[in-house]
Amino acid sequence: MYNFRTDLAVERHDIYRKANKIENKIDGIDVEEQAIDDKLKVTRVKVTNENGEQAIGKPIGSYITVDVKDLKMADEEDIQKSAEILSKELVPLLDKHIDKQGEILVVGLGNLYVTPDSLGPKVINDIDVTRHLIKYVPQYVEEGTRMVSAVSPGVLGTTGIETMEILKGIVENVHPKLVIVIDALASRSIERISSTIQLSDTGIVPGAGVGNSRKEISQRTLGIPVIAMGIPTVVESAVLVNDCLDLFITKLQTQAKSNDYLNKLKEQDNYEEIKEALVPNDYNMIVTPKEIDDLIENMSSIVARGINMSL
Amino acid sequence: MYNFRTDLAVERHDIYRKANKIENKIDGIDVEEQAIDDKLKVTRVKVTNENGEQAIGKPIGSYITVDVKDLKMADEEDIQKSAEILSKELVPLLDKHIDKQGEILVVGLGNLYVTPDSLGPKVINDIDVTRHLIKYVPQYVEEGTRMVSAVSPGVLGTTGIETMEILKGIVENVHPKLVIVIDALASRSIERISSTIQLSDTGIVPGAGVGNSRKEISQRTLGIPVIAMGIPTVVESAVLVNDCLDLFITKLQTQAKSNDYLNKLKEQDNYEEIKEALVPNDYNMIVTPKEIDDLIENMSSIVARGINMSL
Amino acid sequence: MYNFRTDLAVERHDIYRKANKIENKIDGIDVEEQAIDDKLKVTRVKVTNENGEQAIGKPIGSYITVDVKDLKMADEEDIQKSAEILSKELVPLLDKHIDKQGEILVVGLGNLYVTPDSLGPKVINDIDVTRHLIKYVPQYVEEGTRMVSAVSPGVLGTTGIETMEILKGIVENVHPKLVIVIDALASRSIERISSTIQLSDTGIVPGAGVGNSRKEISQRTLGIPVIAMGIPTVVESAVLVNDCLDLFITKLQTQAKSNDYLNKLKEQDNYEEIKEALVPNDYNMIVTPKEIDDLIENMSSIVARGINMSL
Amino acid sequence: MYNFRTDLAVERHDIYRKANKIENKIDGIDVEEQAIDDKLKVTRVKVTNENGEQAIGKPIGSYITVDVKDLKMADEEDIQKSAEILSKELVPLLDKHIDKQGEILVVGLGNLYVTPDSLGPKVINDIDVTRHLIKYVPQYVEEGTRMVSAVSPGVLGTTGIETMEILKGIVENVHPKLVIVIDALASRSIERISSTIQLSDTGIVPGAGVGNSRKEISQRTLGIPVIAMGIPTVVESAVLVNDCLDLFITKLQTQAKSNDYLNKLKEQDNYEEIKEALVPNDYNMIVTPKEIDDLIENMSSIVARGINMSL
Repeated sequence: MYNFRTDLAVERHDIYRKANKIENKIDGIDVEEQAIDDKLKVTRVKVTNENGEQAIGKPIGSYITVDVKDLKMADEEDIQKSAEILSKELVPLLDKHIDKQGEILVVGLGNLYVTPDSLGPKVINDIDVTRHLIKYVPQYVEEGTRMVSAVSPGVLGTTGIETMEILKGIVENVHPKLVIVIDALASRSIERISSTIQLSDTGIVPGAGVGNSRKEISQRTLGIPVIAMGIPTVVESAVLVNDCLDLFITKLQTQAKSNDYLNKLKEQDNYEEIKEALVPNDYNMIVTPKEIDDLIENMSSIVARGINMSL
Repeated sequence: MYNFRTDLAVERHDIYRKANKIENKIDGIDVEEQAIDDKLKVTRVKVTNENGEQAIGKPIGSYITVDVKDLKMADEEDIQKSAEILSKELVPLLDKHIDKQGEILVVGLGNLYVTPDSLGPKVINDIDVTRHLIKYVPQYVEEGTRMVSAVSPGVLGTTGIETMEILKGIVENVHPKLVIVIDALASRSIERISSTIQLSDTGIVPGAGVGNSRKEISQRTLGIPVIAMGIPTVVESAVLVNDCLDLFITKLQTQAKSNDYLNKLKEQDNYEEIKEALVPNDYNMIVTPKEIDDLIENMSSIVARGINMSL
Repeated sequence: MYNFRTDLAVERHDIYRKANKIENKIDGIDVEEQAIDDKLKVTRVKVTNENGEQAIGKPIGSYITVDVKDLKMADEEDIQKSAEILSKELVPLLDKHIDKQGEILVVGLGNLYVTPDSLGPKVINDIDVTRHLIKYVPQYVEEGTRMVSAVSPGVLGTTGIETMEILKGIVENVHPKLVIVIDALASRSIERISSTIQLSDTGIVPGAGVGNSRKEISQRTLGIPVIAMGIPTVVESAVLVNDCLDLFITKLQTQAKSNDYLNKLKEQDNYEEIKEALVPNDYNMIVTPKEIDDLIENMSSIVARGINMSL
Repeated sequence: MYNFRTDLAVERHDIYRKANKIENKIDGIDVEEQAIDDKLKVTRVKVTNENGEQAIGKPIGSYITVDVKDLKMADEEDIQKSAEILSKELVPLLDKHIDKQGEILVVGLGNLYVTPDSLGPKVINDIDVTRHLIKYVPQYVEEGTRMVSAVSPGVLGTTGIETMEILKGIVENVHPKLVIVIDALASRSIERISSTIQLSDTGIVPGAGVGNSRKEISQRTLGIPVIAMGIPTVVESAVLVNDCLDLFITKLQTQAKSNDYLNKLKEQDNYEEIKEALVPNDYNMIVTPKEIDDLIENMSSIVARGINMSL
């Protein structure tokens, strides 16, 4: 499979079309865009058959992307509006898999102490949990309230334990009917960093966004439906340079200043070579907007509110 | 049983002796004090039979208290020294229950976002975990290294899940041979707040230190040995006032200014009444030194280093 | 002067009336209460002459108290509402001293690293400053926008410099027309901790709330009007015990179980004695709700929004 | 002047020599390297005349660089050792400008809430200030102790005030004899991020490291000697891509696959074009190691301890 270096279905779709010079619709992939206002956009990518699956390397299913523009400058109202749009997309996805009272476990992946990886744990801190109230003080809870619990299992590097091992243990003891997982994703666009949410019901491979792939979290591995909310939080620096080289050669070509070698080079994926050249041995370089702390803060408000509204 | 309002065996022993006007040794309890230097003191309380058990309401076993004086002003050297003393007490306790390579899971209870309750999660962040290295890159790990993992399961109020449910799940999937649990304790002495560590191998009732008792974590409930490291982080305000009232009546008595009613009052435990009078409905008032943030910081360094040295 | 151990004019007024068994209005003090809804209450205490000044030890001027009930549980809407009420009280106070475009410097006192003392610096972080925009990119700023700047000068213990020395230097170089100072206050009521804001135009003595009085910040010392926003964040433990002793003796009296000594004791202020008895040498004990971290978070949102709305 | 896009004298010296194909010593610049051990290296660049000044665009003076290898993995011992080396370089610089008891003000520039810019304020929090003790409780201070104060004035974007305006005000009121300024620098090497300290006595332009140059802080502007401690904390992404393009063309050249256009391109500085192409309108993209949070933590310990040892 082509290495897209992005987990966003919408970006993969674009890259695939460009790389294969496809102008029409790809068989097996439906794309639908909806501009909510000048700040909010929803894109729905549906992978409908195996051809679509192979094209963009994503399992059959729905991939909904909510893009929030200028999130770093967002005020209270923008955040509330974005949370509402998110909730509007999340609710039908939940309804598809469980009934209105089905117990839900919300899982925030990531490392609280590494800013671009802290979104998951931050969201968990703001989820309105109800499970303990329903169990211990049912008299204070409105009838029909859904049981909600929330955990932030940490990351392999600081726990020594695979996230899946922790989650499996919790699911076996708590018996939720569905899991919502929040995680960092890889993206190819700086503008999407902490400004985009991808919703899907096909599971997640945690840590993919920060270059440490771990065991898949999905219905297949957990035994219950898994809804993933992925947020791009970094772009790898080798991806950035690779994209830039391509831009650069394209420019040479349009000016008729390229040559055979360069033309061929552009056809290849030079990611691995660039990575080797660029990255000092042990460093894990990332490209991030300077405003990442504010972006993470605002995005975690949107995700937490969006989930709370939906449950 | 008498309500001691402290989880420290050493304080219970003192209170019991005072309340019962015992001047000699209590049958079933051995106490041994050791001053390390003018800043560090170790007290070992051994409950040896059922009489001791009933006297202070603590199961048969060892309760080791390490007291660190002036911790808020501690420098690098003091912290290192305290960690070494802690480790010297912890190692024999570990050796009693598992062999040198037996896998250990370190659990930090508490809520990172509530300062006096944040010690457990802060310690976890500094534990040197090895389990994933031994599993995935054994070539980089010295032979004979013990597997260590570490989790911070959150609190019922923010997860909606009993800590025991989470821990049981993890233990069943990770299969450690022993668990070390770090938790907040109740104490009656302001001077001990975040300045004392109690080590024991008889388990723990999480949240006891902050007034929310939860399910016991012990060999009985988890099926493997549990070593508890308890650190007092708050004193309840009703305890403070109760103790102060007693002091006050004592003073009246010595000045022959008391009366029958007061004398009788002093014999009783007035905690519940005082609590009712003092505490506005929903508030959970605590008494804490103003320097609590620094104290927690320093104590979590001591505990993390003490554990790392021992494993 | 009587030592009220509170900086809130409204509490001093109550204590003075009780202590002097006054049932009618005190000459020189006007009090007006206004319940906004079941969560919000505004009390306006006006000291109108020297008699009032001497009674409650507060200079002639207005003292407006906004009380927010159940702040720890506040949702987005409650916070917004509270900020609006605060702004409604703040605007006339500003208009009294400067015109709509007069430059304002907002000063957040306190220590970011000590939770109950962190409110001031936290508010500063959320103030919408405009001074640099008006100076460097006036084309992007709506005409007529007021110049706003904001500083958080730290505390004597971590800077080594009196707050007044820093402020004087800044005021002399920046030339604002008015200063708004946010600071911690002492209160006698646990319920008011981080739930009450006192607005006044008579200046402030920083650190009073946490037991370290420093040089006055006022029109007299800075040369420009000073509006103080004081928020109680701690109650001293000796105050708590003192109040409790009084309650206790009152109870004995109603049951005819007191005696002469106790009766006399109640007339005195036993604060200093209790403080000595209770407080271990170097500790600065405070009583605080367990939820202090959440309370500070919510209150700093209210204050920052309230100020932003007003400027 | 050539745009070096680095504030490190040692990097400018290398770039200048390479760009001008100089193999011998540059007139007016002395460079001396000293490897302390396999983790620590000190480089001393001396600009001795106007020729040197013009070559690397740095005023006549000393520029000492301390490089710490593998700082993200540093243990307690490494940090202590690095602090000692830093102090050994700082002390003679101080002695050159003031006597042993001359009062010093330490200034930490930067924004605490933006991780890569938080180093200055974090260091300030750990400086041992003495000024207030000498002023208010001289009996507790050893005779001959130097007066030290410390401030963290914030950044223009959150205060609305030029750092120089704040500093001037403080210096005029506090009257220190020398200022030490800690700030973020620009560097061209990812490996140097939060791993290198440049010491100099020629002043500083705050914010240069994060792309927002502000008014110079130096003896010329403050009237007293200024020692700058600059730490690279980010690399601009356009710099990264520019450097990578050069590497790429060099590789084509060695393989005889370049062409005239490319050869010419390499001679130019393409930074501005690349920047335009890469950077989405309002974003301030930075390249940073994923471990930036840990690096900042460790580096701020080194700087704070190094300063404390020296004062």
